[in-house]
Amino acid sequence: MARNPERRALLADAGLRVLADAGARGLTHRAVDAEAGVPTGTSSNYFPSRAALLAGLAERIFDRIAPDPAVLADLGGREPSVALMTDYLRDIVARTTREPGLTRALFELRLEAARRPELRSALGGVLRRGYADDVAHHAAAGLPGGAYEVALLHYAVDGLLLDLLTTSIDAGFDPDQVVSTLVARLVGGATDRAPLGAPGAR
Amino acid sequence: MARNPERRALLADAGLRVLADAGARGLTHRAVDAEAGVPTGTSSNYFPSRAALLAGLAERIFDRIAPDPAVLADLGGREPSVALMTDYLRDIVARTTREPGLTRALFELRLEAARRPELRSALGGVLRRGYADDVAHHAAAGLPGGAYEVALLHYAVDGLLLDLLTTSIDAGFDPDQVVSTLVARLVGGATDRAPLGAPGAR
Repeated sequence: MARNPERRALLADAGLRVLADAGARGLTHRAVDAEAGVPTGTSSNYFPSRAALLAGLAERIFDRIAPDPAVLADLGGREPSVALMTDYLRDIVARTTREPGLTRALFELRLEAARRPELRSALGGVLRRGYADDVAHHAAAGLPGGAYEVALLHYAVDGLLLDLLTTSIDAGFDPDQVVSTLVARLVGGATDRAPLGAPGAR
Repeated sequence: MARNPERRALLADAGLRVLADAGARGLTHRAVDAEAGVPTGTSSNYFPSRAALLAGLAERIFDRIAPDPAVLADLGGREPSVALMTDYLRDIVARTTREPGLTRALFELRLEAARRPELRSALGGVLRRGYADDVAHHAAAGLPGGAYEVALLHYAVDGLLLDLLTTSIDAGFDPDQVVSTLVARLVGGATDRAPLGAPGAR
């Protein structure tokens, strides 16, 4: 029963609605069961702790903002270049801003886990796997730069999304132009050496 | 009475404790009055709406993480360069990570205001002034780059802080090295043209 993926997704979606309505403090197994209209105790079968619940919601967010296979096939068929890397990043920004609540929910989960050390490890595992997948995809696609550049772009795009999806500094620049510049300068314009010896570094 | 700056700061600090303890949903005038140990209605005199309360808390965060005058004097006495810009950014990261709860609280306020459009404008005003001050300081100090570079660094450092202060992707690179690279590549390595005509652009 606890292995039914549709039911797991249904419960995680109910959890995301609870998070949006009641905030991270209101995110309890009982509230998720009530929102999903299932017997009390159901969500605990799928997510046996609050840490597992947060991690499960984060996984569901990544699933829901996953790339369109047709877009991936199109990008995957092109020669690796800074221009291709820019189009990958544009697709990430398009996917994460299309349903703003999902990316906001991920920020909220990250904040909630930071307050409570016992929640940090499970959610951190989901984020670490996401970064490792990005690095592996980057290398497999032969894109310019390595793990260091993937991390730099990750930070810069997270900050841009924070600006676009929460309260903005209203700098007035076109987000699409900002994405192009970030890739051109952080990846294409790299003239200094990336640090060696860091875990995951090229 | 509502113009007593010490009392205003005391109430804002109580509001930041409420935010940390009860989350953004628990941040009400009544809870702030109780936390500050003042008669009900006091915080409404200083912050007449929930939007004003959020903006007041953000202003207080900026005050509390303001640069040390001795550090500013030291940096202000040096020749403008990419190296100086890097040291300014290092000081920002040092100040914002020293009291992690303050920067987390600012992320939380930005998320809360994103959910409720009536809160967005007051908090946005505080953030816009912060960015405008950064651009003005940058120009006055003769630092390399312009408003566009200040915005790019703002996004990248916000994303880095999100990683350092909430739940990390654990890429394993030294934050100090990341800051140096961000400035070197986003400001020093700028070979493309910044967009013209954007509000606030150089």
